[in-house]
Amino acid sequence: MTYCLGIKVNQGIVMVSDSRTSAGVDNISSYSKMWRYGVPGQRQFVICAAGNLATTQAVITQVETDIAKVAPVSLNTVATLAEAAAYLGKVNVKAQKSNTGGGPLFECTFLLAGEILGSSNGLYLIYSEGNYIAASNQKPFLQVGETKYGKPILDRVIVLETPIESAALCALVSMDATIRSNLTVGPPIELAILETGTLQPGYYYSYSDDDEFLRDLRSSWDSLMQQAFQQLQPLPWQPTRAPAPPVSQS
Amino acid sequence: MTYCLGIKVNQGIVMVSDSRTSAGVDNISSYSKMWRYGVPGQRQFVICAAGNLATTQAVITQVETDIAKVAPVSLNTVATLAEAAAYLGKVNVKAQKSNTGGGPLFECTFLLAGEILGSSNGLYLIYSEGNYIAASNQKPFLQVGETKYGKPILDRVIVLETPIESAALCALVSMDATIRSNLTVGPPIELAILETGTLQPGYYYSYSDDDEFLRDLRSSWDSLMQQAFQQLQPLPWQPTRAPAPPVSQS
Repeated sequence: MTYCLGIKVNQGIVMVSDSRTSAGVDNISSYSKMWRYGVPGQRQFVICAAGNLATTQAVITQVETDIAKVAPVSLNTVATLAEAAAYLGKVNVKAQKSNTGGGPLFECTFLLAGEILGSSNGLYLIYSEGNYIAASNQKPFLQVGETKYGKPILDRVIVLETPIESAALCALVSMDATIRSNLTVGPPIELAILETGTLQPGYYYSYSDDDEFLRDLRSSWDSLMQQAFQQLQPLPWQPTRAPAPPVSQS
Repeated sequence: MTYCLGIKVNQGIVMVSDSRTSAGVDNISSYSKMWRYGVPGQRQFVICAAGNLATTQAVITQVETDIAKVAPVSLNTVATLAEAAAYLGKVNVKAQKSNTGGGPLFECTFLLAGEILGSSNGLYLIYSEGNYIAASNQKPFLQVGETKYGKPILDRVIVLETPIESAALCALVSMDATIRSNLTVGPPIELAILETGTLQPGYYYSYSDDDEFLRDLRSSWDSLMQQAFQQLQPLPWQPTRAPAPPVSQS
């Protein structure tokens, strides 16, 4: 399994991915699931992937080949992020079909973030069928893979006005919640930040499992959650509301 | 979908269930998913269900018929919680097969909590195939239905030594996280508490959507989570670790 997350706030886009791959619990490995491409001042992209590893590698190889060989359509030729999403969708479908004939086992979904000179920045989720959706102003994040454990904190914190540093921190907290509850998501954790309008590679971090900042974040969040829990008003222990329905007696 | 949760700490067992049923998003209704049976001083049971509503009702009808008609095996005859789990498993399998021939659409899973005089209390998860597992000392909670959104808080807070009031509060927080992130889980929320060794019906609450305590809990937890998040050490914004791998340039 995998967990990748993109957050698009006013100040920019945050992408986070884990690195665990598993083909069964006895066949676990680490692969980066984040790729970054760009021409400073012109265009910048970050791609994250969840799904079949062979399909992922075939897609990324094709994307890089199209850039290197100056193909008619590549991440270097598209004029908008929507065009980039459509391109990645086509590459994705082709990679699934050409190597295996397709099927659920070979599916991949991608997150694509980026900005192109002359166009607004964007964050897209590209499905295994090649179609795609953009993050909305109402729900400014997209997730692929093991999405549920890390969603409650995003639902509570992330709005368009969230500062980009806070969005990045929230993404790491969301990742930490997922790692804690699901063995198939694991470090290193990669984080990339593209600030709106800069068209620069931006910030990139890779956190290993014993990274000091990540370890501090994990233990701080753990303590803060437990402290928060302690601060809740206690349950009214004596039933003060309507009496319970009668217990079935026999 | 459904979310039901049982927590077994030293002081007792907490059971929580939502009440939303859906056969498609345009066919939503409310049914209680919690049933309580007992003979004070002798035996007490709480059952929660997730899955096909017709199967659930068939199982519960059979359980109540067996009690009422003094069947050779019923919740009134079993000597241990494990026997009760085995009985419920058999009734579950039979209900699926006799009405429909069986199949994934008609499956149900159950949580069973209780205590019987002369035996220790127990918390079991009964699968649609009729087999079952007990909550362990290492992981003293069991979930059925939409389990993921509400798991991180349980992983952080619940241990055997957690006071029963805190376990009940944590169960409500876990339910709230699930309701917030998944439309197919909804109020009323039912909560039952069986204190170890009392063999009494214990405490039972049903919280409607506009219940004052639940509303306060929701908004307090929301604020506390956001406050906790604000207290995290900020992300080191300037990259201070090893430089990023080179961005692919073309």
